Amino acid sequence: CSASKWRNWARHGAPMFADLTAHEVKAVRAYLHGIPEMNLADVHTKTMKKNTILLIELELPKKKEALKTLDRGKARPPRQARVVIQFANQASPNLTEYSVGPLPNPTSHKPHTFKKGRLINFDSRPVTYLEYHFLFQLIQRETAKAHQMLLETTGGYSFINCSDHCLTFSDVGPRGLRPGERRTWIILQKDVEGYFLHPTGFEILINHQDLDPEMWTVEKVWYNNVYFDSVAELVVKYGSGAVEKIKATQATENNIYSTYIPRGHFDTPSNIHGPKLVEPQGPRYRTDQNFVEYAGWSFAYRVRSLSGIQVFDLRYNGERIAYEISLQEAIAIYAGDTPAAMQTKYIDSGWAMGVSTHELAPGIDCPEIATFIDLYHYYDTDKPKRYRNALCIFEMTTAIPLRRHFNSNFKGGYNFYGGLDNTVLVLRTTSTVYNYDYIWDFLFYQNGVMEVKMSATGYIHSTFFTSNGLQYGTKVYENGLGNLHTHLIHYKVDLDIAGQKNSFETVDVKFVNFTNPWSPADYIVQSKLHRTEHKTERSAAFHFGRKLPRHVLFNNPSKRNKWGHQRSYRIQYNSHANIVLPKRCKEENGISWSRYPLAVSLHKDNEATSSSLYAQGNPWEPLVSFEDFIRDNESIVNQDLVAWVTVGFLHVPHAEDIPNTATPGNSVGFFLRPFNFFDEDPSVASRSTVIVRQDKDGTPRVQRWTPEVVGHCVTSKPFSYDGRYGDV
Amino acid sequence: CSASKWRNWARHGAPMFADLTAHEVKAVRAYLHGIPEMNLADVHTKTMKKNTILLIELELPKKKEALKTLDRGKARPPRQARVVIQFANQASPNLTEYSVGPLPNPTSHKPHTFKKGRLINFDSRPVTYLEYHFLFQLIQRETAKAHQMLLETTGGYSFINCSDHCLTFSDVGPRGLRPGERRTWIILQKDVEGYFLHPTGFEILINHQDLDPEMWTVEKVWYNNVYFDSVAELVVKYGSGAVEKIKATQATENNIYSTYIPRGHFDTPSNIHGPKLVEPQGPRYRTDQNFVEYAGWSFAYRVRSLSGIQVFDLRYNGERIAYEISLQEAIAIYAGDTPAAMQTKYIDSGWAMGVSTHELAPGIDCPEIATFIDLYHYYDTDKPKRYRNALCIFEMTTAIPLRRHFNSNFKGGYNFYGGLDNTVLVLRTTSTVYNYDYIWDFLFYQNGVMEVKMSATGYIHSTFFTSNGLQYGTKVYENGLGNLHTHLIHYKVDLDIAGQKNSFETVDVKFVNFTNPWSPADYIVQSKLHRTEHKTERSAAFHFGRKLPRHVLFNNPSKRNKWGHQRSYRIQYNSHANIVLPKRCKEENGISWSRYPLAVSLHKDNEATSSSLYAQGNPWEPLVSFEDFIRDNESIVNQDLVAWVTVGFLHVPHAEDIPNTATPGNSVGFFLRPFNFFDEDPSVASRSTVIVRQDKDGTPRVQRWTPEVVGHCVTSKPFSYDGRYGDV
Ligand SMILES: [Ca+2]
Ligand SMILES: [Ca+2]
Ligand SMILES: [Ca+2]
Ligand SMILES: [Ca+2]
Ligand SMILES: [Cu+2]
Ligand SMILES: [Cu+2]
Repeated sequence: CSASKWRNWARHGAPMFADLTAHEVKAVRAYLHGIPEMNLADVHTKTMKKNTILLIELELPKKKEALKTLDRGKARPPRQARVVIQFANQASPNLTEYSVGPLPNPTSHKPHTFKKGRLINFDSRPVTYLEYHFLFQLIQRETAKAHQMLLETTGGYSFINCSDHCLTFSDVGPRGLRPGERRTWIILQKDVEGYFLHPTGFEILINHQDLDPEMWTVEKVWYNNVYFDSVAELVVKYGSGAVEKIKATQATENNIYSTYIPRGHFDTPSNIHGPKLVEPQGPRYRTDQNFVEYAGWSFAYRVRSLSGIQVFDLRYNGERIAYEISLQEAIAIYAGDTPAAMQTKYIDSGWAMGVSTHELAPGIDCPEIATFIDLYHYYDTDKPKRYRNALCIFEMTTAIPLRRHFNSNFKGGYNFYGGLDNTVLVLRTTSTVYNYDYIWDFLFYQNGVMEVKMSATGYIHSTFFTSNGLQYGTKVYENGLGNLHTHLIHYKVDLDIAGQKNSFETVDVKFVNFTNPWSPADYIVQSKLHRTEHKTERSAAFHFGRKLPRHVLFNNPSKRNKWGHQRSYRIQYNSHANIVLPKRCKEENGISWSRYPLAVSLHKDNEATSSSLYAQGNPWEPLVSFEDFIRDNESIVNQDLVAWVTVGFLHVPHAEDIPNTATPGNSVGFFLRPFNFFDEDPSVASRSTVIVRQDKDGTPRVQRWTPEVVGHCVTSKPFSYDGRYGDV
Repeated sequence: CSASKWRNWARHGAPMFADLTAHEVKAVRAYLHGIPEMNLADVHTKTMKKNTILLIELELPKKKEALKTLDRGKARPPRQARVVIQFANQASPNLTEYSVGPLPNPTSHKPHTFKKGRLINFDSRPVTYLEYHFLFQLIQRETAKAHQMLLETTGGYSFINCSDHCLTFSDVGPRGLRPGERRTWIILQKDVEGYFLHPTGFEILINHQDLDPEMWTVEKVWYNNVYFDSVAELVVKYGSGAVEKIKATQATENNIYSTYIPRGHFDTPSNIHGPKLVEPQGPRYRTDQNFVEYAGWSFAYRVRSLSGIQVFDLRYNGERIAYEISLQEAIAIYAGDTPAAMQTKYIDSGWAMGVSTHELAPGIDCPEIATFIDLYHYYDTDKPKRYRNALCIFEMTTAIPLRRHFNSNFKGGYNFYGGLDNTVLVLRTTSTVYNYDYIWDFLFYQNGVMEVKMSATGYIHSTFFTSNGLQYGTKVYENGLGNLHTHLIHYKVDLDIAGQKNSFETVDVKFVNFTNPWSPADYIVQSKLHRTEHKTERSAAFHFGRKLPRHVLFNNPSKRNKWGHQRSYRIQYNSHANIVLPKRCKEENGISWSRYPLAVSLHKDNEATSSSLYAQGNPWEPLVSFEDFIRDNESIVNQDLVAWVTVGFLHVPHAEDIPNTATPGNSVGFFLRPFNFFDEDPSVASRSTVIVRQDKDGTPRVQRWTPEVVGHCVTSKPFSYDGRYGDV
C-alpha cells in the first residue's frame, strides 16, 4: 500500500526530469526569437557577429520543489528551459544563460547568475559549426601556399581539388595559455577512414579570437619537429632544403590499418553470428517515457545535452536511494612532443559531450532485444535534432549466478542446491567526442546494487611520430605516436539514504593483538574494524595519493535496520585513476574536482554541476570551480549530502589500440552497494530462484517459481540437475 | 602453414595436461594396493590406524619435456600420477607423496622429495571423512551430557533422536596453535537449510591428535561468551544459574532467512524467465577433450583436485602467451569474538578445494547453451568419483561493443559507423568449500586479452553474536555475527611472451616541466613515461603497501613488434586486496605469498605450486614456502619467468550477505593484456564486424561478413542502422 503509493508518486514525478521535447524547444526558441531586444539570428547565417541561441535544454527543478512532488504527490512544478545565448552582435560581446518558462508556453526569461557574481568569459565559448567553417576556410587558404609541399610530403594529399586524397584536421583544447585567448592548435590529417590515425606532420596554431574571420592569423607552424612563424617561412625553408622532409607515407590502399575492414584469420568461425540475448517470455522491465522499473528499482532518466546521462529519484522498493546520479565531466589530459599533443587537455563538456549521443547499433552497441529510444538536442542549431536510437535499455544475463550454493552432504549427495541467475538492467548511451567513443552505463542489479561504468573505445588521439615522443607514448603505426593520457570521469552522486539526512563514515581495519583467552601463553592477532565519522567537507575530501579507506559509507544516523545497524550504502571503486596535473599547472584550476577520488559536499541547488560548458575554453579561471563547494568546509553530519566521485585510468596507447581502443580492461566506474540498508538481501524477492533437494531415494526434486521449460529458442528441455557425485 | 603446424602441436600436446581418467586412477590404485610392503587398506574401514591412499592426481610433466612435444611435435612424455599415502599403521606414522607411472600401466613408484629435505608433518594432514565420523561421534557423546541444556538453549535442537531438530557442526582451521597440534574448534549449529547461519552459541575445542578416537578429549567449551574446561562444568554451572542463558531462538518456521525460498515482492515480473543466451547459428568455439579453441586462442585445461582450475599452453594465433595459468590457493582470514572465529584462517587447498567442484546448474551457474563437462577426482575415497557437469565452457556476449565508433560528418550524417560485439569464451568451475562457493572463471576475449576472475558467493562463515563481536563484524541475523575476513586468491602465471626468455619491466608516469617551445615565457607541465627494469626477484616482489607501478609488463627483450617496441603483455589488477596478517603472527609464515600482490620468480619445476595440501594443517612451518622461491634473489633478466599474482578483498559482512554473499561487486581478478605484443588489435580478424557508410544520397549501406538475419529466435529483422540525426 505504502510502497504502491511511493511508486505512484515516483511515476508521477518522473516527467520533471524528462529532457525537453522538440515541441518545448521550438516554443522556447520562438519565444526568445520573438523578443526584439534579443535581436536573435539563425546560426546558419554566415556571420559571427550576431546574437544566437547556442543551447536549449531542461532546467532541473529545485530539489525541495521536486521532493514535494515525489514524496507528497503534489503537482509538478512548472517546467523551465535553460538557454545559452551568445550575444556577439554588440560592442561588448557576452554569453548569458537564461531560465525560460513555464513550458510549453514560455512567458518569461531570467538571466542566470553564477557564484561570486562570475560572468561567462566570451572567449571561453565553444567553437560553433560556423566558426569551424571559417577555420576550415582559413586552413585551406593558408595551406594553399604549401600545396606542392603537402602533396609531396603526404603522398598526394591536399585541400585543393583533392577528391579522395583530401586533408582534414582536428583541433585541440584549451585554446591558448591564459584567459581571454582563442588560439587553437590544429593537426592536419589525411581524410581517410579513421583520419585520427593519419597525422601529416603538420600542425598549425591559429588565432581566431576576432569575430571577423578575415582578421584571423596563423601564429605558428610545426612541421617534422621544427617550429616556423608562418606557412610561408616553412615553404621557403622546405624548398631550400633547410628542413628535413617527411618521407611520404604509404599509398591509400595501405590505409586499411585505421579502418574496421577485417584482415587476418581466426581458426574458429566468426562469419556466423555469436551468442545473442533473447527474452523467451518477454521483457521483465517496464518503461513509461523516462520512467523505468525493474526488479525492486525505479528511476527517471535524461541525457543532458551538455554532460550526458543522468538518473533521478532512484528507488528500491519505493524507497529513495539517490536523488540524482549524473555524469558531470570527462577529461583526457595528454602528453606529447608535438605542440598539439602538449597542449591537449580535453574537457569534454566543453564539447557538449551530451549532444554527441549517436545511434546505437542493435547487436553491437546494445542487444537486439533492447528498447531503443530517440534523444533530442538543441545545440548550435536552428531546429531541435533527433538522435535516433541514441539510448537503450535492456535486461541481460551476466551468465554468472547472483548467488548459488551447493550444500553437500559429503556422502555423494547434497542437502540442497540453490541458485539465482544474475540478470541486470542496463541503461546505456554513448558520447562520441570526435575520435573517442565513451560508453556510459548505469546497471541495476536485482539485489539493490547499482553500478556506474564508463567503457572507452573509438580512436586514440595520436600525433606525428618523433623520436623524442617515445617519452610520451608508443609508436603505434608508421609515423604515428599514441600519446599517453589519463581519462578521468566525474560523477555527482546525490545519495539520499533512508531519507535526506545523512552522515558519512569510513571503515578500515587495523590489527590488534591480545592474550588468547583459551591459551593465555599465546596471543591472538586479528583485524578489527576502525570506523571514522567525517564531520566536515574538508575531512571527507580524499586527495589522490591519500589512502582512501576500504569502505566509504553514507548512512542515515537515525535509521537502523532490523539488526541495529545504521542503514548505509557504500561506494566501491573500480578505477585506476590518479592525479592528472600538478597544482602548479595553471589549467588544473579548471578541473579541481580531479584532485579527489571522493569528495562530499552539502547539497546545494546552486552547486548543481562540478563543471561547465566553459571549462574547456577557460580552465584557468573556471566559471564553476568544484573546489568552491568544499572550501567553506561545512558540517556534513546529518545533512543532505552529495558524493562526488572521480574514476579513470592512465592510457598508454599500444599497438593494440589500432584501429580502436577496445573495451576489455578499459572500463572504470563504481558500485553503489547496500550495507545494512536492508535486513537481508532484497533479491530474495525474485521468483527466478531454483532450489533442488534430494528425495529420500536420492532423486532430485526441483522447486521453482518460473516455467519449467524456458522456451524452444533457448532449450526445450526442462531444467535438470542431479548434483550427485559418485563412484566410477 | 606455420600457424597450422603450431596448432597441430598444441592439440597434440594438450593430453599431457589432462586430468587422470577413472581408468588411470583405478590402475594406479590397483598397482599400489598390489605392493605388499605398502600394506594399503580401504578408506571406508572404520579404523584410523591403517595405510591409505588419500589422493591420486595427475603429475605434470616437466616443462622442458612438455615443450619438446608442444614446440617440436615430439611424442608426449609418459603420464605419471602423484599419489599421497597416509601411513598410519606403523610406529611412526607419516605421509609420503609418490610419483607413479607410466600410465595407464604403472610399473614404478618413486617417493617425492621436497625442498630442503622437508618432510610432511603427519599432524598437518587434512581431516578425512573417517576422522569426521569419529569427531561426530565424540561430539554426540560429549554433548549428550548437555542434552537438556541444548534443547532449552536452542529451542529444541540436539544430537539425540532429533528428527528435524538436529544439530550439526562446522570445524575451523588451523587445528591448534603450533606445529604438531591437532585440536580443532567446532561450532555447533542447528541442522536446518543454511545451517552456517545457525550457530547455537556453543563452541567446543577437541583434541583429536591420537589415532585412537577413544583417546580424544574435549579441552575447552565456549558458551555464550564464557569458557569452560569441560561440557560437565558448563552443565553444572548452567544448572546452578551461574551462566547467563541464551534466549532460545526462533522456532523452525522462522528459519527461512537462511534459505533460498523466495519472500518479498518485486513490482516487475520475476516468475518468467529472464534474458537468455542462444547461439542462433551454432557454437563458434571448438573443444576436443581438454583442448579448446576460440577466436585466435587455444589452450588445454585441467582441474587439479587439490587446487582447482588450470590452463596450459595458452596460445594466440598459434603463439604461446603462457605456459601455465593456475589457481594456487584461496584463503579467508577471519576475526571475531568467539574462539572459533578468532581461530579461523582457512587455507582452502588444505581442504582440497579442487575436489569440491560440484554440478553446475544450466541457466544459473552457466548458460543453457554451455558445454558441460564431467570431472573426476580421487580424494579420500576407494573409487574415483565423477562430478557430473562440474566444468562448463561457453561463449557469451557481454552486451557491449569490443570497439565501436561513430564518425560524424557534423552535418547530420556520418563518414562511417563501425562496431564489433564483445563476445568472450568462458571456462568456469566452482569450489564449494563448506559454506563458501567460489566461482572460478578464465575469460578469453577476441582481442588477445585474457581475464582471470574469482566471484564469491555461498554462505558467510558466521558465529554467535556477542556485543564485543561488533568490533569484528556486523550483526546479520538474530544471534549471529557476520565476521570480517579477507579473501585472498593466489595464481601462478607462467607467461612465456614471444618465447621463454622474458624480462620484467614496470612503467609509471612522472610530471616534467620545461619551457614551452612555441611560447618561451610559458611552461609545459606534462606526464612522462618512467620505465624501470626489475632485474632480480627481490626487486620484482611488491609488498602490499608498496605502490605497485601502473603498468607491470613482461616482455621478450629481443623481440619487437612492427613498430620497434618490445613485445609485451601486461597484468592489470581488478582487486582490493591487502595484507591479511602481520609478520609477527606465526600463521603468516604459511601464506608468505600473501605478502605480495605481485612477485616474479625464475621458473623451476620444483617450484610448481605456492602452497600445499598441508598449509592448513601446519601454517607455522609450511612444507612449501613461497618465500623460498624469491629469497635467493636470482636474476630475472632474459629468463623463463613466472608471475605470482594475489588478488582479493576485505569482506565485512552486512545484512545483504543473508542468505548468501552475492556476486555483484564481489569479483576480483586480473587481466592479461597485450602491450605492443601484436602490430595491431588482432580482433580485426573477426568477421563479425559491421561497417555502415552513407551513399551519396545518404542511404545507409551496411558492409558485413555475417548473415544479414540473425535468426528467428533473436530477430527476423535484418540489421538496420541509419545513423543520421536531423532536424525535427
Ligand atoms: Ca560546502
Ligand atoms: Ca543527498
Ligand atoms: Ca628464485
Ligand atoms: Ca615463463
Ligand atoms: Cu584513452
Ligand atoms: Cu567473504
